[in-house]
Amino acid sequence: MFDTVIAHGTIVTSAATFPADVGVTDGVIAVLGRGLAGRRTIDAAGRYVIPGGVDMHVHLQMPAGDGIVSSDTFYTGTRAAALGGTTTIVDFVEPLPGETLLAALGARRAEADPQVVIDYGLHMTIGPAEIPKLGQVAAAFAAGCGTFKLYTAYDFRLFDGQVMQAFEAIRDAGGLPVIHAENWDVITTLVGRNLAQGRTTPHWHPRSRPALMEGEAVGRVIDVATLVGTPLHIFHVSCAEAAARIRSARQRGLPISGETCPQYLFLDQDAYDAPGVEGCLPVCSPPLRTPVDQQALWQALAAGDLQVVTTDHCPFTRADKARGLDDFSRIPGGVPSIEMRLSAVFQGVRRGLFSLNRWVALCCTAPARLAGLPAKGDIAIGGDADLVIFDPERRLTLSTASLHEQVDWTPYAGVELQGWPEVVLSRGEVIAAKGVCTAAPGRGRFLSRKPQFPI
Amino acid sequence: MFDTVIAHGTIVTSAATFPADVGVTDGVIAVLGRGLAGRRTIDAAGRYVIPGGVDMHVHLQMPAGDGIVSSDTFYTGTRAAALGGTTTIVDFVEPLPGETLLAALGARRAEADPQVVIDYGLHMTIGPAEIPKLGQVAAAFAAGCGTFKLYTAYDFRLFDGQVMQAFEAIRDAGGLPVIHAENWDVITTLVGRNLAQGRTTPHWHPRSRPALMEGEAVGRVIDVATLVGTPLHIFHVSCAEAAARIRSARQRGLPISGETCPQYLFLDQDAYDAPGVEGCLPVCSPPLRTPVDQQALWQALAAGDLQVVTTDHCPFTRADKARGLDDFSRIPGGVPSIEMRLSAVFQGVRRGLFSLNRWVALCCTAPARLAGLPAKGDIAIGGDADLVIFDPERRLTLSTASLHEQVDWTPYAGVELQGWPEVVLSRGEVIAAKGVCTAAPGRGRFLSRKPQFPI
Amino acid sequence: MFDTVIAHGTIVTSAATFPADVGVTDGVIAVLGRGLAGRRTIDAAGRYVIPGGVDMHVHLQMPAGDGIVSSDTFYTGTRAAALGGTTTIVDFVEPLPGETLLAALGARRAEADPQVVIDYGLHMTIGPAEIPKLGQVAAAFAAGCGTFKLYTAYDFRLFDGQVMQAFEAIRDAGGLPVIHAENWDVITTLVGRNLAQGRTTPHWHPRSRPALMEGEAVGRVIDVATLVGTPLHIFHVSCAEAAARIRSARQRGLPISGETCPQYLFLDQDAYDAPGVEGCLPVCSPPLRTPVDQQALWQALAAGDLQVVTTDHCPFTRADKARGLDDFSRIPGGVPSIEMRLSAVFQGVRRGLFSLNRWVALCCTAPARLAGLPAKGDIAIGGDADLVIFDPERRLTLSTASLHEQVDWTPYAGVELQGWPEVVLSRGEVIAAKGVCTAAPGRGRFLSRKPQFPI
Amino acid sequence: MFDTVIAHGTIVTSAATFPADVGVTDGVIAVLGRGLAGRRTIDAAGRYVIPGGVDMHVHLQMPAGDGIVSSDTFYTGTRAAALGGTTTIVDFVEPLPGETLLAALGARRAEADPQVVIDYGLHMTIGPAEIPKLGQVAAAFAAGCGTFKLYTAYDFRLFDGQVMQAFEAIRDAGGLPVIHAENWDVITTLVGRNLAQGRTTPHWHPRSRPALMEGEAVGRVIDVATLVGTPLHIFHVSCAEAAARIRSARQRGLPISGETCPQYLFLDQDAYDAPGVEGCLPVCSPPLRTPVDQQALWQALAAGDLQVVTTDHCPFTRADKARGLDDFSRIPGGVPSIEMRLSAVFQGVRRGLFSLNRWVALCCTAPARLAGLPAKGDIAIGGDADLVIFDPERRLTLSTASLHEQVDWTPYAGVELQGWPEVVLSRGEVIAAKGVCTAAPGRGRFLSRKPQFPI
Repeated sequence: MFDTVIAHGTIVTSAATFPADVGVTDGVIAVLGRGLAGRRTIDAAGRYVIPGGVDMHVHLQMPAGDGIVSSDTFYTGTRAAALGGTTTIVDFVEPLPGETLLAALGARRAEADPQVVIDYGLHMTIGPAEIPKLGQVAAAFAAGCGTFKLYTAYDFRLFDGQVMQAFEAIRDAGGLPVIHAENWDVITTLVGRNLAQGRTTPHWHPRSRPALMEGEAVGRVIDVATLVGTPLHIFHVSCAEAAARIRSARQRGLPISGETCPQYLFLDQDAYDAPGVEGCLPVCSPPLRTPVDQQALWQALAAGDLQVVTTDHCPFTRADKARGLDDFSRIPGGVPSIEMRLSAVFQGVRRGLFSLNRWVALCCTAPARLAGLPAKGDIAIGGDADLVIFDPERRLTLSTASLHEQVDWTPYAGVELQGWPEVVLSRGEVIAAKGVCTAAPGRGRFLSRKPQFPI
Repeated sequence: MFDTVIAHGTIVTSAATFPADVGVTDGVIAVLGRGLAGRRTIDAAGRYVIPGGVDMHVHLQMPAGDGIVSSDTFYTGTRAAALGGTTTIVDFVEPLPGETLLAALGARRAEADPQVVIDYGLHMTIGPAEIPKLGQVAAAFAAGCGTFKLYTAYDFRLFDGQVMQAFEAIRDAGGLPVIHAENWDVITTLVGRNLAQGRTTPHWHPRSRPALMEGEAVGRVIDVATLVGTPLHIFHVSCAEAAARIRSARQRGLPISGETCPQYLFLDQDAYDAPGVEGCLPVCSPPLRTPVDQQALWQALAAGDLQVVTTDHCPFTRADKARGLDDFSRIPGGVPSIEMRLSAVFQGVRRGLFSLNRWVALCCTAPARLAGLPAKGDIAIGGDADLVIFDPERRLTLSTASLHEQVDWTPYAGVELQGWPEVVLSRGEVIAAKGVCTAAPGRGRFLSRKPQFPI
Repeated sequence: MFDTVIAHGTIVTSAATFPADVGVTDGVIAVLGRGLAGRRTIDAAGRYVIPGGVDMHVHLQMPAGDGIVSSDTFYTGTRAAALGGTTTIVDFVEPLPGETLLAALGARRAEADPQVVIDYGLHMTIGPAEIPKLGQVAAAFAAGCGTFKLYTAYDFRLFDGQVMQAFEAIRDAGGLPVIHAENWDVITTLVGRNLAQGRTTPHWHPRSRPALMEGEAVGRVIDVATLVGTPLHIFHVSCAEAAARIRSARQRGLPISGETCPQYLFLDQDAYDAPGVEGCLPVCSPPLRTPVDQQALWQALAAGDLQVVTTDHCPFTRADKARGLDDFSRIPGGVPSIEMRLSAVFQGVRRGLFSLNRWVALCCTAPARLAGLPAKGDIAIGGDADLVIFDPERRLTLSTASLHEQVDWTPYAGVELQGWPEVVLSRGEVIAAKGVCTAAPGRGRFLSRKPQFPI
Repeated sequence: MFDTVIAHGTIVTSAATFPADVGVTDGVIAVLGRGLAGRRTIDAAGRYVIPGGVDMHVHLQMPAGDGIVSSDTFYTGTRAAALGGTTTIVDFVEPLPGETLLAALGARRAEADPQVVIDYGLHMTIGPAEIPKLGQVAAAFAAGCGTFKLYTAYDFRLFDGQVMQAFEAIRDAGGLPVIHAENWDVITTLVGRNLAQGRTTPHWHPRSRPALMEGEAVGRVIDVATLVGTPLHIFHVSCAEAAARIRSARQRGLPISGETCPQYLFLDQDAYDAPGVEGCLPVCSPPLRTPVDQQALWQALAAGDLQVVTTDHCPFTRADKARGLDDFSRIPGGVPSIEMRLSAVFQGVRRGLFSLNRWVALCCTAPARLAGLPAKGDIAIGGDADLVIFDPERRLTLSTASLHEQVDWTPYAGVELQGWPEVVLSRGEVIAAKGVCTAAPGRGRFLSRKPQFPI
């Protein structure tokens, strides 16, 4: 007698599709079979039973300067994630000046632990101030930060020599670098020029961050990774040019992977031409690109050139976004996508672009392996019973009313998706069902991670 | 209470590796779990539990002209396959002149059915005499021949216009063409020239079949497949040049797949320089190539450029091979590999070239999907309980004594492999254990197949 | 005191553009300088002075079966060539059954010698009946046939093994093979199918000869050339796919070159949809393709992927063309282009696609080198004084009235070209001026040729 | 009656090879012909007559900080150039802080004008201090600086945004940027690390400047040039990786060109392992690389992937080099090659790697076009009579005794070259003959240049 049996569903993993029941005991997948009996039975007839989603790139309650903080807390953000079928997230530690990596990790965990409703991990950010602290990377790895976030942009910007040093330290610790790659020199030059010429509206945001210069930066960090001999994961690929550099590297046999996000798959840069604050809302970096880039990204997911879909979820309120009404460079960057990701990528299956198994690979299995979460992202005996009963027929029109993120707008307002989670389990516990999240804040656990690569 | 439980092993599928028991009832995988109880329990501690191997390219008791027949019967060949961990084979139907495809299928099934100890399918051969019979392709497909074998060489040689017509008929029926691609015009010219010059020893066999002309033919049939709009599987890729054409096609998004065989991974063309009949024995087509090609093929398996390993098992006795002592072109072509395939490819794991999962994909999962065998090649609930308990530590030195193929030589004599099947189940029945095959002739079943592609 | 001085023009060679006079004595370029004095002075102020054009692919008075012969004689054809600025052609020898190569060459020279008004060479055709005569290739080479024409189509079709043998013999003699490459098996299959289905109009001509199958055949003969180790020139490239195979080969460093013709640069396959005999007229092989192919060919000329422009001039009268009114496969193939080639390619300069020097390279210098004509195609001291005074401003509307080919139609009727030859010299003799050809039949000489490659 | 006739030689240009005399009057090539008569006749029987060499990358009397100046003056350097067959050089202007570009140009001309024995041009250097002066670029262009030198390394290092701005200004002026591309961040990090670890010998010089990071920087500046829409010339390509990026860009149709230098073709990094100051002498940047890179560069010249050979001539005395005995980063960088370039590249002809015409293209014609010197680099009527009578049989063993550079060592000591200039003319004047330079200092002229591209 199992604790819970999910009965009569069709199991979909990254590799196979077959009808079977899942028996769960003690929070773990105990059995796959048929006709199983449990103390509790959840009927999944006509539904897919898939691994819980893994979103390895989110920013909850993230300080963005000027007193602005991303609007989803660890509670509201993980609640929205859970309602969308995501049962694991990876957020970030950003050390303060003078703070050790372990102290920063401890501080961030103190924020997250009491609030999270699903399991989570943390990337350790390596900014310029952390270069002198690279000796602490092994300790951070030992404390569970298996992945390290680098930037070639913003105040976090590392110069190439620093990137090299960081790659070396992460390689030696056994960790995986993940990176935001854009050409900051060119961007700051273009931003300065545009503002000086009175080009202050969000229309100029994508025009200050050329796609070719995202491609350049992606190519450059791949070159440095090759020099060092480290695998590398490229964050939020927004354009064909960047995807092409990753494809080229992989064709040469290099251990490089890449991800894109729903905003780059569903939206384009015309969104910045909306009047007033509406044009400010979808500002994120890299920016939304052209419809041609959008198509190229769907193709890259289908062809295996990109391996993961994350969200880069980072919501800011309309009031916060409005701070940049007179200067696009002051708009806090980021959009909310944490809840709609699984369904968003499922549209690729509906359009015939890729298989159900590829969908699960992109949203669950590949990010779990890459992020170092062996108990997540698959339906295997002994693995955590993070499961989603996904109704392929259910339709949802996205809006602030239908979504549960703590932010007063969504870039997807009016988008109609077919296919949505019905029941979501985390370690065997039903945490969301029919749009209601019943999970207690703090039930989620911090996960110590050791990445697997290449994928 | 399950019929049989395989307990305490490590399950390896193409996608995942995890410790679990497998419960089998009524020949089907009923359950994956832990602590399962069965009427019979097989201990697999310290072993891998993998899907039964699928060898989609074998030639048992195949007439080769001049009264010669390949020396393994459907009984001895499937017995050897079973002992090596292969639980499904796909052999061939070769229609006689004037015979309908269905009649030929019936005749071949009549040969196989009473003898086979494992399940099997049949490719339908489309030679020049079958071009007028292309209207029967749909019926052959309906009767279970989901795949159709074409040749650009031998008496079976189709001209390109015939290849096009055959591709069209197969495409329309929903089938998958599989092809032997070499440039027959160039080969016959070179063979004729060499024989005329007194170059009659097997040394001249590979020198009459240039690798570049295998590459050419592979590229050509891919072009014709592209014209027609059909997927295509390339048989027995022997050289870097042919693998490169497949890689290039796949990079352009074409639904092309390819296989290689153990002989091309373990042997090279110097084998033809052995004196007397010894040099005749390893004659096969395409021929053994250079060590550089060998390395390229291992890399192609690792990189995903080739998707399947089969054997092209086609043994002939020393006496039969000796018929070509004075004329290499009269040596019946083919080598025995049916028993050692799983272990052979496992050596790639041992050498660190690819993962356990890739090994299972190459030998089991990918050929099952490509050949249209949804109940085979994976460990999923409801699938056939074709399972191999594989001991990664067991060492075997290959020889006619240690192998069970019905042929008085092996090209692998003296090769030491580590990793070998310990117990093999077919639909839940233990058919081989510790080197003894206990299966009754005729227990195997003919499988009606509808291929899945692309892979 | 030179015989003739061409004064005040701008000299354009494949490498340089500079103002200078040309002094000619004894039919040879004696001097380049300024202020030269001659017994005769031709003013070229405001004109380009370029090398005489070299058209290395024409078919004059060519028997096409059924009593049909291409309508331009060696006299009328070379006269039209001269009027268009071409001072050297290369036509073909087609041996009869049982005829030796030298006898065939002698017979063809006997037809041409009394008629030609410009110098000429002859390619030796190697059809299937010539395979037993390959021992004569060296003699043909010694007799001046430096280039050998092969076909993979028509009754001339060589199988790949024969192509290989021919390549070997030509390589050993020091010659250059030139080839018509299409996939004849696929074409005959499609032609037969279309005719059987009542698809008899010229609309079905291009649809029976797919561009991809021209690409395939080009790739195949490049592979065979690579096997043999011979340079190879690809005739009349009509489509992007074939150009891409040549580019790819050249990027790998192979000694492959290619040409296209005006018909592929100016016309497209919609021409076959004209009613009645009008749709029959532009039938040629390879067929006219799409506008996309047209653009790709202009780009290939600019990028250096194709090196030569010839005409494949092969006119047939409206009456002859009409023989295929009920069966497109019976339309004699070929179009007239011999007179407009220089001006046609000059339009690429006018459109900014390439330089004056590239124009001269494509029409004069490269074909001279490739065909083995060291005294032609350049303006160098000691070279033949084959010179064209080209007026870049002169406009001509093409029509049967304005052109001088002996045929009662032109595919370019109504096309307006800017830039046309004003005066044409062959070995120092003015043979054409202001649209009048004054040359005596038989003044042209047979040229013994040894090709230079790669180009 | 011409001033001078060079009689009986074989003229070699980038496009053609033919026997002819050259008649020179008033310093200009007046005539090409045979049997010419002049007031002075120079016999060139058995010799090649080629255009004077163009070395578009030299550093004469260049301040290198710490009171060090490159040891060849404009007099001694141009004298050595002339003796080696180079009749035009392009050196550099490096503006001082606060100095206008025109003032800097004037100052540099004041140094050069009284000394030069051959014609010369000047690249304008755009360092970080020149970014605010970009408004002066058009004036510098108008004053004859058609090319602008940028660095991504040293104190001259421009950040990518600055590179973009400089490219824009140069593009708008009609000029051509030329660039030293290495990844300075990575280099400074590695240099610092090596010195900190006591790795101070020149052995560590190449190991601090990885070839992959030269490739990266070359790829990056090509990306920025593509963004801006400017042609770009890459200086001193030293390795396969950098050449590959240029080839790739050209294959995509981008107007990118590249050069290498004799030191990268003849020497390798083992030279740095010589003891004491001997290991310091060949320090230059990019550093000498591996024999594999050397081969790749020869191939790139042959295949057209690189278009120009220059010298980057920048000699420093043994005493100056010795300043870095304890710290490889303090060794002034540069080697002397100005005299041996023509002969050095001629060895490629002797080895069968490329043709005589390609040799002339690499050393004379292509750099003349690229640098904007229409009267140089070719043998055309009206062009400057800069001519070299080159003896293909003469052998010279290189040494400080046989060479005429003003420096007390040569990296080529003991190298034996076959083929050397016999007589050198500049604007019709014999300036060097049989190893003696008779030209008066100051006879050379400053050349105002407008580059031509792409080449």
